[in-house]
Amino acid sequence: MTTNELDEGRPLRPRCLCLMINAPGDLQWVEQDRAEMGPGQVLVTMAYGGICGSDLHYFHDGGFGTVRIKRPMTLGHEVAGTVAAVAPGVTSVEVGDRVAINPSRPCAACKYCLEGLPNQCLDMRFYGSAMRDPHIDGAFRTQLVCDAVQCEVVAPGVPLELAALAEPFSVCLHGVSRAGSLLGKRVLVSGCGPIGTLAIAAARVHGAAEVVAVDVTDATLAIARAMGADLTINVATDTDWAGRYSADKGTFDVMLECSGNNAALRAGMEVMRPRGVIVQLGLGGDVTISQNMVVAKELTICGSFRFHAEFALAVRLINEGRVDLRPVVTHRFPITQAREAFDLASDRRQAMKVLLDFAAA
Amino acid sequence: MTTNELDEGRPLRPRCLCLMINAPGDLQWVEQDRAEMGPGQVLVTMAYGGICGSDLHYFHDGGFGTVRIKRPMTLGHEVAGTVAAVAPGVTSVEVGDRVAINPSRPCAACKYCLEGLPNQCLDMRFYGSAMRDPHIDGAFRTQLVCDAVQCEVVAPGVPLELAALAEPFSVCLHGVSRAGSLLGKRVLVSGCGPIGTLAIAAARVHGAAEVVAVDVTDATLAIARAMGADLTINVATDTDWAGRYSADKGTFDVMLECSGNNAALRAGMEVMRPRGVIVQLGLGGDVTISQNMVVAKELTICGSFRFHAEFALAVRLINEGRVDLRPVVTHRFPITQAREAFDLASDRRQAMKVLLDFAAA
Amino acid sequence: MTTNELDEGRPLRPRCLCLMINAPGDLQWVEQDRAEMGPGQVLVTMAYGGICGSDLHYFHDGGFGTVRIKRPMTLGHEVAGTVAAVAPGVTSVEVGDRVAINPSRPCAACKYCLEGLPNQCLDMRFYGSAMRDPHIDGAFRTQLVCDAVQCEVVAPGVPLELAALAEPFSVCLHGVSRAGSLLGKRVLVSGCGPIGTLAIAAARVHGAAEVVAVDVTDATLAIARAMGADLTINVATDTDWAGRYSADKGTFDVMLECSGNNAALRAGMEVMRPRGVIVQLGLGGDVTISQNMVVAKELTICGSFRFHAEFALAVRLINEGRVDLRPVVTHRFPITQAREAFDLASDRRQAMKVLLDFAAA
Amino acid sequence: MTTNELDEGRPLRPRCLCLMINAPGDLQWVEQDRAEMGPGQVLVTMAYGGICGSDLHYFHDGGFGTVRIKRPMTLGHEVAGTVAAVAPGVTSVEVGDRVAINPSRPCAACKYCLEGLPNQCLDMRFYGSAMRDPHIDGAFRTQLVCDAVQCEVVAPGVPLELAALAEPFSVCLHGVSRAGSLLGKRVLVSGCGPIGTLAIAAARVHGAAEVVAVDVTDATLAIARAMGADLTINVATDTDWAGRYSADKGTFDVMLECSGNNAALRAGMEVMRPRGVIVQLGLGGDVTISQNMVVAKELTICGSFRFHAEFALAVRLINEGRVDLRPVVTHRFPITQAREAFDLASDRRQAMKVLLDFAAA
Repeated sequence: MTTNELDEGRPLRPRCLCLMINAPGDLQWVEQDRAEMGPGQVLVTMAYGGICGSDLHYFHDGGFGTVRIKRPMTLGHEVAGTVAAVAPGVTSVEVGDRVAINPSRPCAACKYCLEGLPNQCLDMRFYGSAMRDPHIDGAFRTQLVCDAVQCEVVAPGVPLELAALAEPFSVCLHGVSRAGSLLGKRVLVSGCGPIGTLAIAAARVHGAAEVVAVDVTDATLAIARAMGADLTINVATDTDWAGRYSADKGTFDVMLECSGNNAALRAGMEVMRPRGVIVQLGLGGDVTISQNMVVAKELTICGSFRFHAEFALAVRLINEGRVDLRPVVTHRFPITQAREAFDLASDRRQAMKVLLDFAAA
Repeated sequence: MTTNELDEGRPLRPRCLCLMINAPGDLQWVEQDRAEMGPGQVLVTMAYGGICGSDLHYFHDGGFGTVRIKRPMTLGHEVAGTVAAVAPGVTSVEVGDRVAINPSRPCAACKYCLEGLPNQCLDMRFYGSAMRDPHIDGAFRTQLVCDAVQCEVVAPGVPLELAALAEPFSVCLHGVSRAGSLLGKRVLVSGCGPIGTLAIAAARVHGAAEVVAVDVTDATLAIARAMGADLTINVATDTDWAGRYSADKGTFDVMLECSGNNAALRAGMEVMRPRGVIVQLGLGGDVTISQNMVVAKELTICGSFRFHAEFALAVRLINEGRVDLRPVVTHRFPITQAREAFDLASDRRQAMKVLLDFAAA
Repeated sequence: MTTNELDEGRPLRPRCLCLMINAPGDLQWVEQDRAEMGPGQVLVTMAYGGICGSDLHYFHDGGFGTVRIKRPMTLGHEVAGTVAAVAPGVTSVEVGDRVAINPSRPCAACKYCLEGLPNQCLDMRFYGSAMRDPHIDGAFRTQLVCDAVQCEVVAPGVPLELAALAEPFSVCLHGVSRAGSLLGKRVLVSGCGPIGTLAIAAARVHGAAEVVAVDVTDATLAIARAMGADLTINVATDTDWAGRYSADKGTFDVMLECSGNNAALRAGMEVMRPRGVIVQLGLGGDVTISQNMVVAKELTICGSFRFHAEFALAVRLINEGRVDLRPVVTHRFPITQAREAFDLASDRRQAMKVLLDFAAA
Repeated sequence: MTTNELDEGRPLRPRCLCLMINAPGDLQWVEQDRAEMGPGQVLVTMAYGGICGSDLHYFHDGGFGTVRIKRPMTLGHEVAGTVAAVAPGVTSVEVGDRVAINPSRPCAACKYCLEGLPNQCLDMRFYGSAMRDPHIDGAFRTQLVCDAVQCEVVAPGVPLELAALAEPFSVCLHGVSRAGSLLGKRVLVSGCGPIGTLAIAAARVHGAAEVVAVDVTDATLAIARAMGADLTINVATDTDWAGRYSADKGTFDVMLECSGNNAALRAGMEVMRPRGVIVQLGLGGDVTISQNMVVAKELTICGSFRFHAEFALAVRLINEGRVDLRPVVTHRFPITQAREAFDLASDRRQAMKVLLDFAAA
């Protein structure tokens, strides 16, 4: 691939480049015909795409758990761009609008959709996911045809980089909503990667009285503070930290577990007060917990998966400046350096959120 | 000890017999001075005491987890008897009243008591518990002095045997309350010992549409059916059962986990539908769960510990015949055969709830 | 109309009789072509139809509030019958099945349906309702073509009369669900018409510890007791009743207001304890309440409208004998006496639920 | 009274001045012996006191509803000052600390306190309240002896004027907590007096996506915007406003009703979406509502009374600069002009929160 294959200056050209994963480690920009715009659809010239943990799992391992790449798939679901064309009758967005794109497309017809749980849709078509086969292609591409309703308009002056964070921030807003009201609550955030640091902002918006964040690297904890943590603890060096919060059965009302790490979950259970709620956002494998502690303190552990209405809220909060997510974006790469971007994104000590810049070359 | 040391016919005699545990396996009836009745107190001639799992843990292992017998302690907290005397001014009960006795005595002053969480009291004095030292003596005794407010009057015609079940039934009523409304819900009960079978009755009272119970022994499952389970499954022989309930992400809205068994919990997670709630009632040790399943199905696991207001409710439901708990009581022993009672109670294949009969000899 | 126009013995005859309201007081059986069965549909030979308060409002007043009959409409939405034919491919019911028919048909596509609030559907097609124009015809008819999914099969041995109560009982099950868990709660039911008496059964199923019912006629209170009320009070004669329940700020946790009567609501507010929940089921007009009492006792008043998932639950509870709704049915009329049926149903002192018997002549 | 009777420079002088109400319109500074400090108590030199609506009711009408002044009572419960002395053993505050004082003193022993509802205490001793007799004297005084636990320390740099707002802001934080999570919700605030404008800030802290405020005077609406309302509507002049928000059954998820005005409540009900929650904060008299609208839209109306844990949260939010309550304070008066202060505070067109300055003369 050479840079002259890119043609971001002519967005209506019917060919586009897609970042495809063929097998673990086998990442490639592939030129494809652009999809036709159907009724209610728009064409977006893509600007930025954030690399997510699941993208990295596909890249390194070919998937996670039972989810495995069976054939080549375009990656990516944290994206933003500019509307280049709209189908006749579309009024919610206009050509030239800068938009964040919701990668979640529930069927609106299955039993979970009709119960108001679209994130549990039985026929979900989520961008860049191998959960079903044929896989659903993602949005790391120079041009995208999507439904107009997937587009949330970004306010003037808001960098499109931040709009690319709307998706992971939605995940965090959904996570804090699972804990119920946070008003006046003491919140512990464990694991300060992109989800953990964005969860700090979400907890703040949701009214948390105090946010304490724990991680094992100082660099991520610095970003946690920039995102609004009142206090951060490096639990790799401050190994006695839990003891300071376990008096009278524990301290924290809510824990946002974003590490997927067993030790973090176990330590968190010790510092939770009775009836405390642990929201599990981070994916991991099997974890071992003390059943007796769950019982005796009447702890609640509840999972949080993706999002729905929170996507529009995320864009609104970004647009209105009610959250400042800039500290999370640490690196940007032109698409010619996609592999370098993936490599750096895999190193938690160096990178927080790494963006692909679809317009740079 | 000979039977003529018992003197249940003369309840005001200032000596009583207490069933004490000195060390693992060392169970003994000991004669003691009866406590003096203070203001607001009553004297109860004890009739029945149910042997609980925690009594068995003290008997076999000297405790559980970090809770260990450090000095001799009277066992027992599932008890009922007849009021033999009341202090001046006591009006809530009268001499001759048959009563169930609430073994839970929160301090009514600590922060959790003032938050409406007395079962999480920081200064709890629960009968027959070595959680604090000095331990709190229990109620396996021929006479008991307790507060009048601990006594719930049993209705005429209701056997005192059933009143002795008020305590474990309270535990189950608290458990089902942790799941929120059960109206119209499909409920799975795992582990059909005394707590599991009583939980079936509690789920029924709380409006469950359907109750499926699983265990590994047919005898306990027969009692589960007698207690109101619509369907029972012996998961030791019907090893494919989970597959029948896991379509469309799962079936059950609520699981009442009463086994403390890791395999039961893991199988339950597979058959829970998205947003399902698992109430953990059974105590066990460390358990290993799939974090990814918690996340992807947004399951909730919440602990349930003891009870509070549920004790009066339990007696009311028993009194009004709105639950029939008789199938749970499988054996009765005179106190001269306490050891035999404990041995049988330890054998789940033979016994469900074993009662000590303090009046028999 | 003569009886030989009825032809219930030959259900597949393509003509059927419909009970239409043309204007206030103008009720008429009209012969119509039966609808064609489409895909997924069934033909039902109707057996019973219960007369509801809204039917009476159309009959006497031509409607209620802003809902008015603008053109002739078939009445009725509390119905049960026997399946006479099924479209090819229908497997959920068979010819000969006795069924309760769900009159609620939300669109499954509007925003409220997709939020899990189908009873708030923006495009609801509810039987026998003039809320939209053209009106939606009802089910007081000798034959009905409906969707198979509207049919809940009635268990052998359960009278179809009781199946006709599934709809109003669903309303009550939805009502009690609005109050959250009733486990251990003290419940006041005001207004013991069909909804009030069925609400008593619903509160019992949902775990209420105590149900007190109030009304102004002894006959209805007798039925309230038969339906499970622990205590009934005729507030027309026992005018001091509220004083007995207002000590310490009040007594009841939950009130199910089924009268639509202002005085009942006001008296109820006095006897509710702090944080008590009043579920408003009864329709009325403007009511005047004490704002200061709402504030000072932090009362909650919440409305309950129709039902959704509760319909299947209602049939299940009836089928399994977990509720006995027979006391509610006080009268049955052949369809030749529809006017007499409506007149009697309008007299609360004489009638509770009046059924039309579509097979009798 | 002459100014030399005041002696704020010598806080330990055993005499202090109290602002007493003797009868409607009869307001007087009275010199009294200061109370002795008991164990756990502190002496506070008072700085500011905010005039509340209830103070105005006592001043103008001698009370409200059934609450009436039966004998002279010191007014005031929105106060802040500086600690002048502490009893031996008090460590939570020190001499010199600037503190907001919690006027709410529940008994910590009645049934509601033990249910976690201290604001519903049966034996509440709230400052400046004639709800019980003898009345509880208030805190409009130059010196106050109170319990150390009533004092929340104000951060350096935070004006004590703002600390005097902690009490009404607590009322609002309690109010928003009654609505459950506001994350992403559209909120309507009706009535933009001190409670309404502080409620806007509370809704913002609690995560409201959008806040629309309505009132009948432009001056208060300007303050509403300064407090964070996205949009304000003068409903006296823009009489068609409700129509813009009533499509598809309505718009707002939550209404914070702070006016106590019947028309505001009725208009609000029209613009609420199905299942919307109206929190009633404002006190009024009898109000008339449409029962049918409550039912058909399944609206919830719930009262909010005072506060408890929210007081500490209020001070924390003020201390950390997470709310800026300055726009609410419009006037300050030395205590020699208390009557002028009360007169101005009674004029909603001119004044929002009026403070008494106990140190000025």
